[in-house]
Formats: sequence, structure tokens, C-alpha cells
Amino acid sequence: MTDRRTLYHYSLCPFSRKVRLVLYEKGLPYAMIFETPWARRPEFLQLSPLGTVPVLIEPDGHALTDHVAICEYLNEIKPSPNLLGETPRGRAEVRRITNIFDGDFYMDVFKPLVGERVFKALKTGTAPNSNMIRVGRENLKRYLGYVDWLAARRSYLGGRNLSMADLTVSAHLSVLDYLGEISWDNYTDAKLWYAKIKSRPAFNSLLHDKLTGIMPSSTYANLDF
Amino acid sequence: MTDRRTLYHYSLCPFSRKVRLVLYEKGLPYAMIFETPWARRPEFLQLSPLGTVPVLIEPDGHALTDHVAICEYLNEIKPSPNLLGETPRGRAEVRRITNIFDGDFYMDVFKPLVGERVFKALKTGTAPNSNMIRVGRENLKRYLGYVDWLAARRSYLGGRNLSMADLTVSAHLSVLDYLGEISWDNYTDAKLWYAKIKSRPAFNSLLHDKLTGIMPSSTYANLDF
Repeated sequence: MTDRRTLYHYSLCPFSRKVRLVLYEKGLPYAMIFETPWARRPEFLQLSPLGTVPVLIEPDGHALTDHVAICEYLNEIKPSPNLLGETPRGRAEVRRITNIFDGDFYMDVFKPLVGERVFKALKTGTAPNSNMIRVGRENLKRYLGYVDWLAARRSYLGGRNLSMADLTVSAHLSVLDYLGEISWDNYTDAKLWYAKIKSRPAFNSLLHDKLTGIMPSSTYANLDF
Repeated sequence: MTDRRTLYHYSLCPFSRKVRLVLYEKGLPYAMIFETPWARRPEFLQLSPLGTVPVLIEPDGHALTDHVAICEYLNEIKPSPNLLGETPRGRAEVRRITNIFDGDFYMDVFKPLVGERVFKALKTGTAPNSNMIRVGRENLKRYLGYVDWLAARRSYLGGRNLSMADLTVSAHLSVLDYLGEISWDNYTDAKLWYAKIKSRPAFNSLLHDKLTGIMPSSTYANLDF
């Protein structure tokens, strides 16, 4: 038995990216297995009946699914650094922001934009719906505006300290950044915040991700973008 | 200052229903304000910038949004009865099931079925898309099968004790039951589990909900259905 965990992930999956960041910030060593969820490998479906990534395999072989359950679990078994906040209201605020991005942002931006631009072709080989992509890009501006608003008022998105909110939002934005979809011009505070998160050692592994056939944007791995 | 909380809710919102159940099970007294979220009342948007219900107003006036953040918060400030489970892995399992219903079930069943059948008419006055409704109904069977599978193996959906998983799943199913969309015929264990949850005092307030213009199904408030 090893104390190393194993994470089944997909590079452009924001939820996989979030768990990678949390594992690193918690100082928990892990190995990664690249999984293409829509291939629906039988062995993978044994671990994740819904076929979703990420899946975290604990050192004793126990499999955990669902990114929210995994992140809460990791914060419980390794309380330091506390990535949820020190008080019940502080944690409610961190979870609120986290869930806006895992839920609303994912539906309003990720699905129409990345879903159409990238996953539809990968999964079905059919052409993207350009109207959906346009809707996703418009929605993205609204969320960048919200990140900018938060970043102008707080050291970190959830409050004074780094939290799950920063790791979640940056995980989502990093996928769009990989695809060259983010222009920071009108979001100075958001940009400063993202530069701060991007320069953390935890982010380094994400910045070296490369997916066959989809090259990252020219500034993706650049810390001074 | 009172020790009573106030919950802004919408009757057929499963997330509002979940918070109502949690407040009751926790023994926390609360008053309710019926809010139609798509009316976008300016005073309500002050409390909930995204315009979503539920919103919980704490005795000191502090407003909390996001149903997941609210439920985690309530379990923190009132730890007994513990609705998440006793161990980190137990809590991961409860959160996993909770998130399947709040996320996947909501997208696969609630949005196509209730969204088309009820909300589209209420919000826009346009006719429902019958194909979407059919898809929602087909998906519902798959989830009822999963509830049946869990209920056959465990006293409660998340394990040996009542948890957030039971309250979440029953909150979602109760909306469909109100609309007469659930036939339990092929799901004996799911039906026994639902009868057990439905007969809890916490459920009583839900069973007396009536929405103008939309009558509940004949068995909705029946404990022996």
C-alpha cells in the first residue's frame, strides 16, 4: 500500500483541474491517469457509474466520484491549509462562489462555448453551432465582470485567504484561456488575481497540459501575460 | 431581534424544498416568503443578485444564497442531527448522491420535464416542447431505478441514517409527484423509502403547498399512496 492517490482526469475538464489544484495545495501526492470519459471504457465505468471524471482513488483503493464531494472530503481529511474558510459564514461565501462557477458558469459559458467548439467535434465529429458559441462568449463577459468586481474588493475571491473559490474559478477560466477565449483588457483586477493564482506552484502542472490536436493559446503558459 | 429565520422560496423549486426540509429536521424555526424568481423584483435582487431562490435570512439579517452553501451552513451551525454522516467517506457518499440529483437529475429530468410542462408557460406563455417532456420522462425512469437500487441496499439513501441525500432526492421527487409524473409501479423499494420520508413531520408543510392554477395530483398529499 502506498500513500499516493490516483486521479482519473481529463485535461480540459474544469472539475478535474479543480481537484488537481486542491490536491497540490493540500500537499497530497498523486498520480494521474488521463481518461476520455465519453469513450466509456468498461473498467472506468466500474469506478464511475455515471462515467464522469474526476475519480479519486484513495491509497487503500477506495474510489471517490463527484468533484464537490471529493473537494469537501480532501478538506476534511487534510484540514490544513483550510480551503473553505474559518467561519460558517465565510465557508458559505466560499461555497456560494464555487457553486456559481461549477453550476451556472458551466451551463452558461462552458457548455455552449467549449461544448460546441471542442467537445462536439471530439465526440460526434459534427460541426459546432456558431450561435451557441456566440452566446457562450457573451455570457463569459458577464462572469469576467463578476470576477473583476470580487477581485477589486478582496485579496482572494472568497475573502482574505486563498480558498476553494479561487481554485474553482481559476480551473474553469484556465480551460477557456487554453483555448484563447479570454481577453483580460476590460478586467484589470480579474487579471491581477488570475496572474497571482497562475503563478502558484499548484498551477504549474496545468500549464504543461497539452491535448493532441488542440494547441494552447500563445499566452496560456505565460505567467506574465 | 428574533431567533426566527426567513426563507424566500418558490413552491415548485426543489432547492427551496430541500432547505425547508433541512430547517425542519434541524429544529430551526423559520417563516416563509413566497417569491416568484423570474419576476425579478428589485428588492429581491438586492438579496439574491442572480435572482435565484432559496434565500435564507438569518436572525441578524444576514442573507445567504445558494442551496448547497445554505445546507452545509445549517449543518455546521446546528450539528445535531448530523445530516451529512459521521465519517469523511460517509459524507462523501451523501454529498455524491445529493449532487447527482441537484445537478444531473435537475438537468436530465427537471429542466426538460417541469421546465417545459410548467415553467415555460408561466414565464413566457408559450407552448411546451412535447419532445423535451418525453425525454425528461424517459430519463426519470433511469433515476427512479437508481433510487430503487439504493433503497434496496440501505435503510436510507446515503447509508444507515437519514441524511441530506434523502432530503434532496425527496425534495426533487416531490415536485414531480405534485405534477402526477411519478408511477412507482416498478420501483417497490423506492416507493417504500419515499413513503417513509413523506411521513416525516418535516414533509408536512410541503404536502400542503398549493400553487394557483396548478393542482397537485390526487395522491400527492396521501401518505398511503
